[in-house]
Amino acid sequence: MTSSPEPTPSPARERRQRVQAAETGMAVLKGLAHLGGRSSLTALSAHVGESPAKVHRYLASLMEEGLVLQDAASQHYYLGTEAIQIGLAAMRQADPIRAAEPCLIRLRESLEVTCFVAVMGNKGPTIVRFEEPGLPVTVNVRVGSVMSMLWSATGRAFLGLLDESRVLALAEQELGDATPDMRAQLDAKDPIGELRREVRQAGCASVKDTYLRGISAVAAPVYDYAGRVSAVITALGATGGFDPAVDGPIATAVRREARAASTLLGAAA
Amino acid sequence: MTSSPEPTPSPARERRQRVQAAETGMAVLKGLAHLGGRSSLTALSAHVGESPAKVHRYLASLMEEGLVLQDAASQHYYLGTEAIQIGLAAMRQADPIRAAEPCLIRLRESLEVTCFVAVMGNKGPTIVRFEEPGLPVTVNVRVGSVMSMLWSATGRAFLGLLDESRVLALAEQELGDATPDMRAQLDAKDPIGELRREVRQAGCASVKDTYLRGISAVAAPVYDYAGRVSAVITALGATGGFDPAVDGPIATAVRREARAASTLLGAAA
Repeated sequence: MTSSPEPTPSPARERRQRVQAAETGMAVLKGLAHLGGRSSLTALSAHVGESPAKVHRYLASLMEEGLVLQDAASQHYYLGTEAIQIGLAAMRQADPIRAAEPCLIRLRESLEVTCFVAVMGNKGPTIVRFEEPGLPVTVNVRVGSVMSMLWSATGRAFLGLLDESRVLALAEQELGDATPDMRAQLDAKDPIGELRREVRQAGCASVKDTYLRGISAVAAPVYDYAGRVSAVITALGATGGFDPAVDGPIATAVRREARAASTLLGAAA
Repeated sequence: MTSSPEPTPSPARERRQRVQAAETGMAVLKGLAHLGGRSSLTALSAHVGESPAKVHRYLASLMEEGLVLQDAASQHYYLGTEAIQIGLAAMRQADPIRAAEPCLIRLRESLEVTCFVAVMGNKGPTIVRFEEPGLPVTVNVRVGSVMSMLWSATGRAFLGLLDESRVLALAEQELGDATPDMRAQLDAKDPIGELRREVRQAGCASVKDTYLRGISAVAAPVYDYAGRVSAVITALGATGGFDPAVDGPIATAVRREARAASTLLGAAA
């Protein structure tokens, strides 16, 4: 039953195949989550738009299954251990690459830009998914490429927003190995600190000709449920035909798509 | 309806008041979580003990409510964003003090010991719940007391198992302020490192006359869903009538109760 694709049923048939009471139960469970995980029967009934008597019956079932508990003193209902287990399993399934895929396609189609998603690999920011428009700009990065921490927009987005010691260590190593020319592109006194401040302030990173000659790029962070940067979405183009301004239309679109992917991973809005 | 306590309904009446289809839906949701958050229809049906056709209808409802998604390539089902949100709300409700309360009562009743639960406050390990047997030993700690990081079993349990810089900072400050007598109770070369190693090896901390004269104690960690020590459960008694051995019956019971509280908070078994 799972291996062969089935024809898509019509909406009407699909509705018949569902289970109304199960959906109401899920709506009560989601309602309790949306109210912060704890609620009175009155407030929860109002939130889901059902009578308190009906919601009470569903809560009895949710309690039977260990998803909900009732506080003896306040009689409020709150989400229990089984709800934590469901969330933990869902978080293990949350995949930044899968979440970012439709974002890349929308960016490619709406802006006609080359774009990609990168995660922090053990050697640095690593491209894991790449999309090109019909007439792509020629760049020598592809899936598997490891990007610079200090001179690529992708690396700067991680550097500014992912607070992990290995990120800083990679940046410091790059700085130590840099040629005087490369070094001259950065702040003289506090090169890494200045990059981080810029990225944090803008909520994205932007470069023009620093990493690849003739290429500009903007990069924005994808956050997971824990508020950690789990990926970076980057758009790039030939300098001249590509506006890398942090308040320009491309940066705005990249930030918006990165937020959309973050929402799918459970990040707070 | 929420403010006045209702008489407890009989089990038969309570069963009638529940909603069978909602419970089946929750069983499918929990089943998917217990299978790691992703499964084929076949494996999930076998896990919940229902026919694939029936489970398929419930999955359609779970998908409608955004709790479950289906992978287009493998046709496997996996937990989605709404499931993450439910888990996050449940985690916010997970309260180590509430989880540890029945543990304290069981320890008091089975072992006739004074016991308490402490959390890391900004001044150090702080007692937030305290239980005494009928004939308590006289101790000058109570709810609100801040315990020593280095000389109390409670503090040592945090020091050994909660890897946070403020814990180490508090311990180092205490060491700097210690009298030569107090200092002599610890390892001469690496006092903090040695304490941490002991606690990690035993999975609990044990002291005899170090913090309060004539008092022995054992303390074990309560972990949350993220594997972080969120509280410590401690049992204490008059040295002589209290066995603080890390493999003795009291330490075994304290570790067991701390694990029970951890399970309620969603910690991995």
